[in-house]
Amino acid sequence: MKAVYNHHHSLHQGKSEFFRGAQVPAFERADRADHVLAEWQRRKLGEVVAPKDHGLAPILAVHSQRYIDFLQTAWLRWVALDPGNAPRDAFPSVWAIRTLRDDVLPDSFAAQLGLFSMDSGTPLTAGSWQAAKTGADCALTAADLVLAGARTAFALTRPPGHHAGADFLGGYCFVNHAAVAAQHLRGKGASRVAVLDVDYHHGNGTQSIFYDRADVLYVSIHGDPKTEFPFYLGHADETGAGAGAGCNLNLPLPAGTSASRWFEALELALAKVRAFAPEVLVLSLGVDTFEGDPISHFKLTSVDYLRMSERLAALGLPTVIVFEGGYAIEEIGVNTANALMAFA
Amino acid sequence: MKAVYNHHHSLHQGKSEFFRGAQVPAFERADRADHVLAEWQRRKLGEVVAPKDHGLAPILAVHSQRYIDFLQTAWLRWVALDPGNAPRDAFPSVWAIRTLRDDVLPDSFAAQLGLFSMDSGTPLTAGSWQAAKTGADCALTAADLVLAGARTAFALTRPPGHHAGADFLGGYCFVNHAAVAAQHLRGKGASRVAVLDVDYHHGNGTQSIFYDRADVLYVSIHGDPKTEFPFYLGHADETGAGAGAGCNLNLPLPAGTSASRWFEALELALAKVRAFAPEVLVLSLGVDTFEGDPISHFKLTSVDYLRMSERLAALGLPTVIVFEGGYAIEEIGVNTANALMAFA
Repeated sequence: MKAVYNHHHSLHQGKSEFFRGAQVPAFERADRADHVLAEWQRRKLGEVVAPKDHGLAPILAVHSQRYIDFLQTAWLRWVALDPGNAPRDAFPSVWAIRTLRDDVLPDSFAAQLGLFSMDSGTPLTAGSWQAAKTGADCALTAADLVLAGARTAFALTRPPGHHAGADFLGGYCFVNHAAVAAQHLRGKGASRVAVLDVDYHHGNGTQSIFYDRADVLYVSIHGDPKTEFPFYLGHADETGAGAGAGCNLNLPLPAGTSASRWFEALELALAKVRAFAPEVLVLSLGVDTFEGDPISHFKLTSVDYLRMSERLAALGLPTVIVFEGGYAIEEIGVNTANALMAFA
Repeated sequence: MKAVYNHHHSLHQGKSEFFRGAQVPAFERADRADHVLAEWQRRKLGEVVAPKDHGLAPILAVHSQRYIDFLQTAWLRWVALDPGNAPRDAFPSVWAIRTLRDDVLPDSFAAQLGLFSMDSGTPLTAGSWQAAKTGADCALTAADLVLAGARTAFALTRPPGHHAGADFLGGYCFVNHAAVAAQHLRGKGASRVAVLDVDYHHGNGTQSIFYDRADVLYVSIHGDPKTEFPFYLGHADETGAGAGAGCNLNLPLPAGTSASRWFEALELALAKVRAFAPEVLVLSLGVDTFEGDPISHFKLTSVDYLRMSERLAALGLPTVIVFEGGYAIEEIGVNTANALMAFA
């Protein structure tokens, strides 16, 4: 298996995030990817290749033009507001919730940042766009490898992507790499694509992007949004809309869920994927289901990721694997490599 | 004229707010009301009376039950999360924007705080609910005085109210005192009520609460939301909906607007109020249109508030005056008293 490595990932290094009313050091750190790459190389899992620039078109196939326009210039506008902003991450402070309009683009940078975001946990930095854009290229290059006949390819990138909606950032995510890859696979001839999301957090962005479509299935196992981020999506009664009715499956599990119960949910997820009969699988791989994760609450151990890998590989599908969350830095390399073992 | 003074206002004293990506000292300070009260007494504008407790029913006539339930217990839940929270104001960090659901109440306090808020500029403190509830009682007591025959009454309260929506806080506001008063006047027999909002910021909460109603007119003169808070509402094309079509008038003016241009807009606002022929007027009185306001950008001087007062009083309507914004602390007493002079 090849890993398509985002050599620009460290251009995005948030200093802090807002968490429960306080500004705390960012959990989504650059050394996450370093540890995964080191373990990949230590185990000799396969060649590490560079992403190919795919331009903006495949990103604009799932994100709105005005959002991507904003992301590309956001940092320069943040610093232009006040040169003293340069050492500080940009955060929004106002949001266009219900009764407020999102159809008028404000001139104010602060208002645009709020319009295009869902939280204040996602630091926007000088290199956020370049890191996220290159991440999309990683996912697209991995998809190309699979389209060209590879059984599996791994997009090793950060920041993650699955919380990013069609026109907003959030949950450490700017560009939805999994959605970009799934749409690219569709455009290149795969008639049915399934996205399976095993990150601890529900991939609200991915779900919402494909929610009314019958050609892309979204299945997720995640912490119950009643208590876990992203809170406002990921409930079991969200099963798709319109043509997409029945093409969305959420399997929320309570905080504290054991590995055995998690694997029961995985079997339901796999059955749904099999029944959909996709030509290609996109796997949103987060390892924040780990018992030691600092912001998540499932109880998987490192060896459980080997079993996960076996069950996922047993689907027998061409698979594009996109790296998402996981914040237990010391163990992230081992856990991610374990999750990839049966594919390698 | 009587002033109904909120003797609980100082129970709400936010330490900080988030403004352009940084945590800064709160602009909405307790001494705002102290200065207005002092100037009221210095000029002997009238008796200062205490508010009468009106219970929750008049508040629930414009705010949702689940939002008011939340506000009443929010601080205790914030501290219960972590006793270390006690010295810190509570702020949300995630919001239920488009594609995300607001119909499922999360168990998480952080998620509920986000669900019921539009910004991170509004510190929730131990006394926020009691201060805002007493503020509603001030507005209701002032409305009762007018219903009983007084020409004018002044609800001297803070924090302000006009940004608070039916089910969210924001813009330093928790309970929409002006909306509570307007609805109370309707319930007590006034067939038509006009709300005129001269605060620098558009009163998005008040507008949205009455947007589809023909019995309550909302008219506002304010900084253009393209560049000024609340950004996502207050545009000129918002003229009411359904039965309320034509019963909303926004007069946004660019930052930097002169007093002469402001008074031209005031004449348009007054003409709209006269044409509506209300039985009672509710005046949302903010004095952040002052040239020295630290977060606003109109150019009114202190003497301009005397002229404003004359033009407003010339409507000849029974008038409930509710105090809103104004952050130039040294001048807030003089400016507010000037704005009240022609009524006194």
